Amino acid sequence: MATIIDGRNSAAELNATTARRVAQLKKKGIVPGIAVILVGDDPASVIYTRNKDRKAKKLGIRSILKRFPADARQAEVLATIQEFNNDDRINAILVQSPLPSQLDETTLVQAIDPAKDVDGFHPVNVGKLYGNEEGNYPIPCTPRGIMTMLSKYQVPIAGSNAVIIGRSNLVGKPMLSLLTNANATVTMLNHLTPNPQYYTQNADLLIVGVGQPNFIHAADVKKGATVIDVGINRNSSGHLVGDVDFEDVQKVAAKITPVPGGVGPMTIASLMEQTVDLAEWSE
Amino acid sequence: MATIIDGRNSAAELNATTARRVAQLKKKGIVPGIAVILVGDDPASVIYTRNKDRKAKKLGIRSILKRFPADARQAEVLATIQEFNNDDRINAILVQSPLPSQLDETTLVQAIDPAKDVDGFHPVNVGKLYGNEEGNYPIPCTPRGIMTMLSKYQVPIAGSNAVIIGRSNLVGKPMLSLLTNANATVTMLNHLTPNPQYYTQNADLLIVGVGQPNFIHAADVKKGATVIDVGINRNSSGHLVGDVDFEDVQKVAAKITPVPGGVGPMTIASLMEQTVDLAEWSE
Repeated sequence: MATIIDGRNSAAELNATTARRVAQLKKKGIVPGIAVILVGDDPASVIYTRNKDRKAKKLGIRSILKRFPADARQAEVLATIQEFNNDDRINAILVQSPLPSQLDETTLVQAIDPAKDVDGFHPVNVGKLYGNEEGNYPIPCTPRGIMTMLSKYQVPIAGSNAVIIGRSNLVGKPMLSLLTNANATVTMLNHLTPNPQYYTQNADLLIVGVGQPNFIHAADVKKGATVIDVGINRNSSGHLVGDVDFEDVQKVAAKITPVPGGVGPMTIASLMEQTVDLAEWSE
Repeated sequence: MATIIDGRNSAAELNATTARRVAQLKKKGIVPGIAVILVGDDPASVIYTRNKDRKAKKLGIRSILKRFPADARQAEVLATIQEFNNDDRINAILVQSPLPSQLDETTLVQAIDPAKDVDGFHPVNVGKLYGNEEGNYPIPCTPRGIMTMLSKYQVPIAGSNAVIIGRSNLVGKPMLSLLTNANATVTMLNHLTPNPQYYTQNADLLIVGVGQPNFIHAADVKKGATVIDVGINRNSSGHLVGDVDFEDVQKVAAKITPVPGGVGPMTIASLMEQTVDLAEWSE
């Protein structure tokens, strides 16, 4: 049976480290600050931003949750981003997705000061990650959390064959960059890939984020592989499940993340970690 | 025997189109302008920048070749980039690689106005390509030239298995983005890939840029594949050769680029095309 990669435990450990770093900064008179912009009342976004706000405060981070009505105009949101850009007490800014259709997300993300872009979505930061540039810059938090777990569970990356299913800008593409930069051979599959098993059955590391329950079965997985499940779906009985048939796949995989309790908890923990990074880098 | 993908013919066609576009712009009083910055006397760079300068002038593009001695200081080169950024007659700026070691290439490239970044190396433009953003932005010229040839020779991309050997920021990575954005399944191999043939023998499209003669043989290639050779090497008898054993591979490939006369000629032609694009986009 596979080793379970425990995201809750990993997140608790990371949060403890983050809290210690915040305490250290406070001795120097620095309080890291994050500003989250939420437009409208999308229920998942309301919960998610509230969780970010609570977690930040719990760790000693200054947190501002700025809400706009669903019919907010682009200019208002832009003006708020500019205020946060110019506010020395704010080190980290994020605009919660999804946005109402009258708002242009690309323009809003590009308006964030790249040095405060805690989601790592600004093209300047995307380009640096892609180019494997040296120096400090933020990267998307879900892939960052995955890399932290892979390291904690001593999963070898260099020289491995990695396969990513799903090519989102949030997960698939930054994951591709991080693994490529760490000397893995990476294939990113999409819905047109004629022979996905050709790749998945040869993958030492399989990362799945397609939003479809039971998308990956034991027959798709190489014996001894590490399987990372980024999916969050609700099954017919209302339970949270990932994209991987966990019971089946854990028989062949060497290491596997569960859902819930795998990738999810690490994303907010990595967001908090990166908020403190941005505060330290801005000194 | 494979169809030869003729880069000289493709470049001549593209240059003819570019010259027509320049003539059209001139009727509106616009002359596209490119500024090339060369530091030092690297023989290949001297030849390459001279060829760019001549080709630009031949097509009716205003061309400035700004030379610095090998011991130029960072501040001088930066000041020149700023001048070109502020010069309305210049639409395209590039800094020729390689640079002497006292200069920081990353900083210089980032100093170029992204709207004038004709090489497509600025992180803002890299990030846009990576994110598959809509709108107009420059992309690296060698991959752009390859995409133009693939289109001209009607090589299907969507749904294909593509393999890229070499992961440079100039070729491998932007090629990965362009092919991924066009719905190919792409694997980028590196020197640590344990089983490269596993991937190459399944590749409908194989792109090779490693700088090693005879790196790819017929046994590595799927029957009917398209093979693009980005390598430029000199063999023991002093002749230019690519990374692919052309005589051997053309027996199994359906389409193949020769060296010389394949990817090479298309790179400068694509640079000229992109200079005119930048002039049109800036209107």
